[in-house]
Amino acid sequence: MTNWKLTLEYDGTAFCGWQSQPEKCGVQDAVESAIEKIDGGFKRVSVAGRTDAGVHALGQVCSVKLEKDWQDFRLIEALNAHLRKLGKVAILDAQIVDDDFDARFSATSRHYLYIIQNRRAPATHLKNLVWQTPFRIDIDLMKQGSQKLIGKHDFTTFRDLQCQAKSPIKTLDKFDIDLVQTSYGEQIHCTLSAQSFLHRQVRSMVGTLVDVGRGRFSVSELVERLEARDRKMCGEVAPSDGLYLTKVGY
Amino acid sequence: MTNWKLTLEYDGTAFCGWQSQPEKCGVQDAVESAIEKIDGGFKRVSVAGRTDAGVHALGQVCSVKLEKDWQDFRLIEALNAHLRKLGKVAILDAQIVDDDFDARFSATSRHYLYIIQNRRAPATHLKNLVWQTPFRIDIDLMKQGSQKLIGKHDFTTFRDLQCQAKSPIKTLDKFDIDLVQTSYGEQIHCTLSAQSFLHRQVRSMVGTLVDVGRGRFSVSELVERLEARDRKMCGEVAPSDGLYLTKVGY
Repeated sequence: MTNWKLTLEYDGTAFCGWQSQPEKCGVQDAVESAIEKIDGGFKRVSVAGRTDAGVHALGQVCSVKLEKDWQDFRLIEALNAHLRKLGKVAILDAQIVDDDFDARFSATSRHYLYIIQNRRAPATHLKNLVWQTPFRIDIDLMKQGSQKLIGKHDFTTFRDLQCQAKSPIKTLDKFDIDLVQTSYGEQIHCTLSAQSFLHRQVRSMVGTLVDVGRGRFSVSELVERLEARDRKMCGEVAPSDGLYLTKVGY
Repeated sequence: MTNWKLTLEYDGTAFCGWQSQPEKCGVQDAVESAIEKIDGGFKRVSVAGRTDAGVHALGQVCSVKLEKDWQDFRLIEALNAHLRKLGKVAILDAQIVDDDFDARFSATSRHYLYIIQNRRAPATHLKNLVWQTPFRIDIDLMKQGSQKLIGKHDFTTFRDLQCQAKSPIKTLDKFDIDLVQTSYGEQIHCTLSAQSFLHRQVRSMVGTLVDVGRGRFSVSELVERLEARDRKMCGEVAPSDGLYLTKVGY
């Protein structure tokens, strides 16, 4: 058995999230089914980030032990041949790793991108791929707010009630807000890094920052809300559409 | 009656092209149906670029004469309220123009973007929005080739046999090839400008340039193929997926 690290990309729109489900609607189901077809027998993969329904990935990582002697290029091609029919999942890279490597437990950093398209007109090409916000947003207020969330905090306010993490204390290493010109128009990109995140933490923080940017409450009230350590003090939770797991560090 | 210039964006994937069809599968059908709902009675719009099936727009322009006294903001909102259900067409701007303005005949320049995603792995988020090319492409050869097509030429080689333009002679003002870093990975962007284009001219030129970039034939053979003025000398025709009408000049 050889332990493999797979890097993959997916459009989460049509999936019920990463995790395998009896209805086979998880991204995990698609990936495990492709592996099963080429390497024989059922394989369970370990994943760095169990993304929610509708959340996307540009650099998700999973690990799996395979029986055959694969060349990396052949393995990627064989998996993509099966995944291609779906058109929504693609293997970008495959590397042999030590036997004790585990995509989830070996990860030392996780990186997310949240894309906001701030305009009145509905999104067309990027429907389900961005959060289209029709109201006016002051990006400088978002920037000021994001800096208040950096560092080690009790993030209970920005944690889903279903979150199963043992502790609500996390260290947020990066939370940048940038105006970016793209072929599809101007976008607000929120880029975040941490060793790990709580359930719905990114969407909770981005949505609440958008509340600050649209003037629903001030930057100092944002700090009060963080310090309240109370889920009821969370602002709007941003929709899954704009969220991408971009990279996992090891 | 007030003459309006509407700027619009659409995802062409699910449409049979711009032009109205008995099956109502044209983008024009969607736009005219929305106008009919808010301004009463059937309205025929004039359009700058009659895009083919699957071709996208980021700055298409059409003109139409309306009966009611609309404020620009209200008009855009009312049209988008109807188009939003489709999720694939959006009005970006509306302006009152002189009575003799015609989106098609008044246009003095048309601008296109063609997006190529050059990688082995199939496209996921951008499926139908880019041409994913799995072979190696030398972008410098594409750049050299593109410069040979600039200027006034008989473009018969790069013109669809169904093209109804009176003359195959056109002047290509711009044909840039750039490597662009995007959130979805590295892309090759081809940007083209001309007063007008022949039917399938952009896709024919881009596809043939990709043939040059992948080494199927040389830049000097590209020139010979242009000079042959023979449709059979056209290389591969790039698929509709990667093509966007980005802007129309007046």
